[in-house]
Amino acid sequence: MLKTDQSVLDFVDEIKEYLPGNSIDCVVFGFDAQKLKVLLLEWKDEEAWCLPGGFIKNTESMDEAAHRILHQRTGLNSIFLNQFFTFGNTDRYGPKFKDHIKKTQKVLRNKGVSDKKTLNWIASRFITTGYFALVDLRKTHPQPDFFSKSCQWIAIDELPSLIIDHNNIVVTALEHLKVQLNYLPIGISLLPAKFTMQDLQKLYEAILQKPLERSNFQRKMLKLEIFIRLEKQMTGAANKAPYLYSFDTEKYNQLLEKGIGFTY
Amino acid sequence: MLKTDQSVLDFVDEIKEYLPGNSIDCVVFGFDAQKLKVLLLEWKDEEAWCLPGGFIKNTESMDEAAHRILHQRTGLNSIFLNQFFTFGNTDRYGPKFKDHIKKTQKVLRNKGVSDKKTLNWIASRFITTGYFALVDLRKTHPQPDFFSKSCQWIAIDELPSLIIDHNNIVVTALEHLKVQLNYLPIGISLLPAKFTMQDLQKLYEAILQKPLERSNFQRKMLKLEIFIRLEKQMTGAANKAPYLYSFDTEKYNQLLEKGIGFTY
Repeated sequence: MLKTDQSVLDFVDEIKEYLPGNSIDCVVFGFDAQKLKVLLLEWKDEEAWCLPGGFIKNTESMDEAAHRILHQRTGLNSIFLNQFFTFGNTDRYGPKFKDHIKKTQKVLRNKGVSDKKTLNWIASRFITTGYFALVDLRKTHPQPDFFSKSCQWIAIDELPSLIIDHNNIVVTALEHLKVQLNYLPIGISLLPAKFTMQDLQKLYEAILQKPLERSNFQRKMLKLEIFIRLEKQMTGAANKAPYLYSFDTEKYNQLLEKGIGFTY
Repeated sequence: MLKTDQSVLDFVDEIKEYLPGNSIDCVVFGFDAQKLKVLLLEWKDEEAWCLPGGFIKNTESMDEAAHRILHQRTGLNSIFLNQFFTFGNTDRYGPKFKDHIKKTQKVLRNKGVSDKKTLNWIASRFITTGYFALVDLRKTHPQPDFFSKSCQWIAIDELPSLIIDHNNIVVTALEHLKVQLNYLPIGISLLPAKFTMQDLQKLYEAILQKPLERSNFQRKMLKLEIFIRLEKQMTGAANKAPYLYSFDTEKYNQLLEKGIGFTY
């Protein structure tokens, strides 16, 4: 267990380097052709689940901290993270927070941390900034950190109860994503290289959390002219086989710039 | 000068109550029929301009802090504030920040503050959360606080050099507003009760920072069906007089819910 203990000692030592009062939590969304999922950490020593999160070093920017934290806690690298909201309510510090603090302090004590300053620091108020990312979950290989038993993709409609206000952070990230659908194309980082219009529709339905009408959806999407039509997907009867598409990266990126919302 | 000194003493005393490492800055936009303006504070004792900003008390939420700060610093009340971005770069702490700290410490020392803890606290790193508001500047009567000589509406294309990264905070707020035009109607809190389509166009042009084509703009706006057409604006020749409009509040609010962006 030397590795774990050293890591915990490192963590305690790092507290001196952290900016007080601020933390970061990452909501990493992936899509597995049916469901929108979020990357969660399952604690090693207590019954608890959380978003990959952490603190900001005095010497690093908040964006740098977000990338370091996501890497340290899940092994993920080169992820495009978007800041979406900063959570500063006092009700973050309700009974659920107190329970979380008790568990955290117990974990730290079990690992030999008795330093009062560290144990109190953990219990202080933090304003947390949420970052979200959209990733192709087939291409990522998340790994749990030393505090965690597992690092798993969990469907957003099957989330367990998360620590503090992390369920609310996921809900807010999803709301932000829904709003983005009003003015930005989406999908290039969530879908495989080849997909059917039905695959795309399932992604939008998973984010909007409502069914969409097939022909209307396809007509509107194809009108965006960001797709390359490929061969038919040969699975069943040839006459019913849907076309496969890929994104036209150049046109997709142009549309990211221009937007698909109301224009003046 | 007793009032000022007492206020400064209160401020110093309040530092104990503040959450470390976090601050708030407010970008209040107003429109005066020609130009988009921002509410700025001009310092009393030094050549400096800033956004109305301040710190978060341990007992209050970030939203509550934003409202209290805006009220304390400008006298404005019941303003609808929207959180738009949290600024956590380390380059906030460049030469401009050092200059700002020197000025702040000088102001405090001149007011009799010698407490090292206070002077150092002011110089520490803060992550600041930006809030923006859209107000009818004819209805507001901003008042400078005890640190400020004046509280003024300044056109966004005529901003002075502001402290720290406040110019960047204004630019980011404006970018956020531009993005919102892709999916939300705007204007109800910025325009007078009666306005012409040309007034509305000027507002959009001020936010988008580019000229728009008149007939296209009018056609698209009228299609939103959120206006009530009133009498003609009688200023010159009757045949050229434009119609006045007001917002149909109910329909406007419905559209705020539904959005005007890309729908699925």
